[in-house]
Amino acid sequence: MDQVCGTSKIAGCSFSIHPMSDEFAGIILEILKKVDTSKVWLDTDDVTTTVRGRVEHIFDVTKAILLHVSKTNVHAAFHATYSIGCPGDSAGDTYMAESLHRRNEDASRSITQPLAAKFSLYPMGGGSYMDTIYKQIEAMKSKGIQVTPAHYSTRLDGDTHTVFEGLENVFRETEASGSSHTVMTVSVSVNSPSSKESIL
Amino acid sequence: MDQVCGTSKIAGCSFSIHPMSDEFAGIILEILKKVDTSKVWLDTDDVTTTVRGRVEHIFDVTKAILLHVSKTNVHAAFHATYSIGCPGDSAGDTYMAESLHRRNEDASRSITQPLAAKFSLYPMGGGSYMDTIYKQIEAMKSKGIQVTPAHYSTRLDGDTHTVFEGLENVFRETEASGSSHTVMTVSVSVNSPSSKESIL
Repeated sequence: MDQVCGTSKIAGCSFSIHPMSDEFAGIILEILKKVDTSKVWLDTDDVTTTVRGRVEHIFDVTKAILLHVSKTNVHAAFHATYSIGCPGDSAGDTYMAESLHRRNEDASRSITQPLAAKFSLYPMGGGSYMDTIYKQIEAMKSKGIQVTPAHYSTRLDGDTHTVFEGLENVFRETEASGSSHTVMTVSVSVNSPSSKESIL
Repeated sequence: MDQVCGTSKIAGCSFSIHPMSDEFAGIILEILKKVDTSKVWLDTDDVTTTVRGRVEHIFDVTKAILLHVSKTNVHAAFHATYSIGCPGDSAGDTYMAESLHRRNEDASRSITQPLAAKFSLYPMGGGSYMDTIYKQIEAMKSKGIQVTPAHYSTRLDGDTHTVFEGLENVFRETEASGSSHTVMTVSVSVNSPSSKESIL
């Protein structure tokens, strides 16, 4: 079971991206050619893709994939569970030696994309995170992100780069505050034909 | 923030379903006509749909929506976060008075659908749940579900009804064991053209 976790600092993300198009498979194969995943351990099956490594590269890779799919103008959904505090292993821990430089940031920065996201934070192992999280939420607001409470989550509307920066900060600060196992789920919608209207 | 939770017994699920088709909107509107949501509080926006009420109806409605979408034979993804232990409110608590009869079960039972699912359990409020969960996992195995460990989750392959029954039992047993706030995430893939092969 996933809740038995150790103290390794390896971060990971289990995610899926869904372009709502008959051409979904082709779109994803094209995007994979554009995103540099060399700094993360990566495994894909028919349900989710998992990346593991340093926090910066987990966010760098997942943001880049989302942005490249967004750029096709197809309506797409992205669902991710970020986790830190689960035990590493020899296959994954190798990637902890990678340098801090984010391989996809330059290419990602060239893409401007608004998104709607809902995120939830599950600090499984204690920590004094509330103040730091509120600080990060305020920082996002001051950078133009609209923050709205929702059932079981917090909604963020705004620029993809600003939202991802905020989410990475929330995740890092929770971990730094002493939570021995931190989980954050994020659901994103881009290019929605029914922005803020009713669609499942 | 979502982690500040009380002791109400109202359950809820924030979910999305994504038919990978140019016709995604039409498919969803058709399915909504076929699923009876009268026993749950329901709210939909462009990112997720939230249903709240009694545990049985939360699972009844989400399973029915997944099955009806599956029946179209379109490749679809379903992502859900089930939660219990967050405070209710007057709008939601009204639905706690509904009877136990599952409005969609008869129609759902007529649909046979294999799925691949990954689930994670986050018992935020203690509880002695490990033994009961292992028991539920064993029960699923004995009914033909293939159970595989995965990073950050447990993978289940098999019949939709059996998997959902197992997930509902895991969720209920964790809550019953004393967890004051229980969260369970579920990612599902149906009608995948690349079953168990590499696609994001």
